[in-house]
Amino acid sequence: MKDKLVKNEAGRWVPLEINGEPVIPYQGVGKYIPLGNKYAPPLPSCALFPSDGNKVTTSLKDALVKAGLCDGMTISTHHHLRDGDFVANRIFDIAHDMGIRNLRWFPSASFPCHNHLIPYLEDGTISHIEGSMNGPLGEFTSQGRMKKTAVLRSHGGRTQAIQDGEVKIDIAVVAAPAADPFGNANGLTGPSATGVLSYADMDVRYATHVIVVTDNLVSFPCLPMQIEGNYVDSVVTVDKLGLPEKIIGGTTQITRSPDRLIIAEMTARFCEYTGIIYDGCVVQAGAGGISLAIAEYMHQIMKRNGWKIRVGFGGTTRFMTGMLLDGTMEYILDGQVFDTESIRSLNENRNHIPFTINNIYNYHSKGNFAQFIDMVSLGATEIDVHFNGNVVTHSDGLLLHGIGGWQNCLFAKNTIIALPLFRDRIPVIVDEVTTLCGPGELIDVIVTERGIAINPLRTDLLEKVKGSGLPVKTIHELKEEAEAICGKPDKPRFTDKIVAAIKWVDGTVIDVVRQVADN
Amino acid sequence: MKDKLVKNEAGRWVPLEINGEPVIPYQGVGKYIPLGNKYAPPLPSCALFPSDGNKVTTSLKDALVKAGLCDGMTISTHHHLRDGDFVANRIFDIAHDMGIRNLRWFPSASFPCHNHLIPYLEDGTISHIEGSMNGPLGEFTSQGRMKKTAVLRSHGGRTQAIQDGEVKIDIAVVAAPAADPFGNANGLTGPSATGVLSYADMDVRYATHVIVVTDNLVSFPCLPMQIEGNYVDSVVTVDKLGLPEKIIGGTTQITRSPDRLIIAEMTARFCEYTGIIYDGCVVQAGAGGISLAIAEYMHQIMKRNGWKIRVGFGGTTRFMTGMLLDGTMEYILDGQVFDTESIRSLNENRNHIPFTINNIYNYHSKGNFAQFIDMVSLGATEIDVHFNGNVVTHSDGLLLHGIGGWQNCLFAKNTIIALPLFRDRIPVIVDEVTTLCGPGELIDVIVTERGIAINPLRTDLLEKVKGSGLPVKTIHELKEEAEAICGKPDKPRFTDKIVAAIKWVDGTVIDVVRQVADN
Repeated sequence: MKDKLVKNEAGRWVPLEINGEPVIPYQGVGKYIPLGNKYAPPLPSCALFPSDGNKVTTSLKDALVKAGLCDGMTISTHHHLRDGDFVANRIFDIAHDMGIRNLRWFPSASFPCHNHLIPYLEDGTISHIEGSMNGPLGEFTSQGRMKKTAVLRSHGGRTQAIQDGEVKIDIAVVAAPAADPFGNANGLTGPSATGVLSYADMDVRYATHVIVVTDNLVSFPCLPMQIEGNYVDSVVTVDKLGLPEKIIGGTTQITRSPDRLIIAEMTARFCEYTGIIYDGCVVQAGAGGISLAIAEYMHQIMKRNGWKIRVGFGGTTRFMTGMLLDGTMEYILDGQVFDTESIRSLNENRNHIPFTINNIYNYHSKGNFAQFIDMVSLGATEIDVHFNGNVVTHSDGLLLHGIGGWQNCLFAKNTIIALPLFRDRIPVIVDEVTTLCGPGELIDVIVTERGIAINPLRTDLLEKVKGSGLPVKTIHELKEEAEAICGKPDKPRFTDKIVAAIKWVDGTVIDVVRQVADN
Repeated sequence: MKDKLVKNEAGRWVPLEINGEPVIPYQGVGKYIPLGNKYAPPLPSCALFPSDGNKVTTSLKDALVKAGLCDGMTISTHHHLRDGDFVANRIFDIAHDMGIRNLRWFPSASFPCHNHLIPYLEDGTISHIEGSMNGPLGEFTSQGRMKKTAVLRSHGGRTQAIQDGEVKIDIAVVAAPAADPFGNANGLTGPSATGVLSYADMDVRYATHVIVVTDNLVSFPCLPMQIEGNYVDSVVTVDKLGLPEKIIGGTTQITRSPDRLIIAEMTARFCEYTGIIYDGCVVQAGAGGISLAIAEYMHQIMKRNGWKIRVGFGGTTRFMTGMLLDGTMEYILDGQVFDTESIRSLNENRNHIPFTINNIYNYHSKGNFAQFIDMVSLGATEIDVHFNGNVVTHSDGLLLHGIGGWQNCLFAKNTIIALPLFRDRIPVIVDEVTTLCGPGELIDVIVTERGIAINPLRTDLLEKVKGSGLPVKTIHELKEEAEAICGKPDKPRFTDKIVAAIKWVDGTVIDVVRQVADN
């Protein structure tokens, strides 16, 4: 393997092949231009489908058999059921019982509930995951125990990979909170309501075979059609898609940590002072504790100034829907819902609009929505002195998180990483990130409880903060401050074995994750 | 040419090649199953688009030049501007001025205003039309004056042809009543409002290059995004997309002809008596005078029985929105708007839902929405004694109409052709249709002012009408009755030259139209 490595434009050594398929090393932001055409799935004919439109199949197993499930296939799932998902696990239970091997699992994200799949990764039912690997699944990967190399992509990178034919989906399984017998579906109602089904949209359009699984079969037509039955092969009914209390968290909660509240307040103040937020701005809000607090502070700023946010991109929470209700936000474009209040809002408010991941994040589109976002606040596991960011591995080298929309959001006009300067006495600012997920040229500001570092490339922001009284420091100063308190952490140790590839938004390989060495 | 003709499954002689491209003869309803994959357009990258998202180009000419307009290209337009369209004509004015030749025009329909293009068909700027040819454009075609062979498709056949790669669109031009600088667009507002942009949806997804033309540039984001800017290359602003009074007709009017009112009333009565319409039925309504009258009679039936129509598929008029308002219709799925009241409804009523033509009509889908429609009423230029239908040529052999959604609607559970028994003393029921557009096995009932003919294949309906008092006759009886009044018309005379091909919903060739012979 080693002789096939090349140094990519970010200075990282990456392979030219992953799992036997050629890959393209990262070439720099905006440098790789794809050739050829988009992928397109096989042609269907309605003549091969029931003329009464009833595609209901007796069981998920029957639907998988009808779809021709066999060794080596790629199975896609989406993560709207989050940590309450029964469906993805059930697919692989069935595959295992059928003796199927070497499946590629292509989820839009994985959660702790998917640890259930570890035995199938061990016994070869699943050869590898292309998606996110969190917690024990990530640890399993980091220990070099996955049969093939994992591939991590951003949410937008996943849509790009599907569109470009990098990943051809044999069977897409859509867990649908409401569906009719034709396969028209949405996430708006039923015991497992998820609000939207945005992450399943590309899978449905590009997969060879599509199975809709629902615990809420409604009469034709299921409206609005977030998923169009025209793309669906079979519909399966089950008792329960998942655990409702783990699908939607009920009520999202702002952080109570005093340090994190300071970070949030400082971020909002910085954005107001520098003019990053203004009347008519476009913002992206997350659902992490700090992000929610930032949203709440921004809400106050909007109200105080009599301003409106033109568009809030969600991950949607009650903090955004509250702005919609009181007129401080004009529109929510929603790819994912985090609380029950947001589902109510989707059902009732015409300015709360479901939005596909392809539309906001796919880099291989005729433009990039993410570039219109005035302000995004993100987290990270590490930031280095060149402002490079890591979101997938921890300081011990273990792969513990997915990329999510993080890489895609870096294209916002102002990308702010808001995070505590250290966690469990491990500083987050390092000399060089363990795993490179985002190049420093796209990260503008680091806000910590002990000060704000502005990327030297952003001379405009450095100029604007002069005289603001905001605690602006260099990133080196922040790093030294953390190390003075916590000491300089040991570097993680790795073997040569590549266990995972990190794709950039354009499908090139920006870095790899290696097996952690035994202590 | 003649030696290459074959007799297709409908008994019509058709060529194996049209314009140098191989074609497949009609094989019977549901018999042709396509192989291979859908078409997919070239891969874009947002790195090649302006990072501020502003795609506004100075003029339509500049946008066409940027799109690489050159000889032999395929230019698609949609017909939401109907007979008020300035945009399609402007494209070819520009092409002509640039000396471009041999363009294929691929409109979703043409109108009298497009007679403007005849000089460009004569001088070779446009080589041929694949779409509908109405009035003078059809006459021009019938006279054998088009440089290449015209191709007529149903609305659904057009989406199938785009999807299957039968027609690869080089440049799609979308006339958008509202658009933002990124190209997000809808038909809901502005001086040229069309309500929906359903006919442009497939063009935008599959074309190599997409130009949005608007007379109503709004600030980002233009919501809802009926057209997603992610698929758009350039945005052009113009003073006026078209003549508002010819885009939407203001108020749609029911026929005042006593004969046609009788036909409409008898159709509604027939549907009620036979149980074709019932509480929860799905219907398609048109905008012709008879169709509107049928809708109004059905409305009365619904109210009298306390029934609801579950879904009305539009072509939407105030007769449908009225049912939505008073609760006799639950949902409108809308592909096209015919009056200003329908635009109001689309803007205000969440149960009035824009719907793409691909979703309702594309035969190469995983199912066929049209099959769920309980009742559709259609017109025709001729019906023959085998219930075969013609909608494109008149009794004089001239090509004067497009197919529209007619072929697609034939798949409804009950297809009713409602029409006067003769027009200008020419009987509509003939021994054999001049041009075969729809096979008789799909046409269930003919309703005329002088009686109702039921297809002998529909023994169920024949059984149900017994004792109804409805004037049920055989189709031969209807034909003889008409001929007793009008005499038997002369058959039109043709040369051997094929001037147009008629595609079936699956892309096969069901018939051809020949040049009319000089008298």
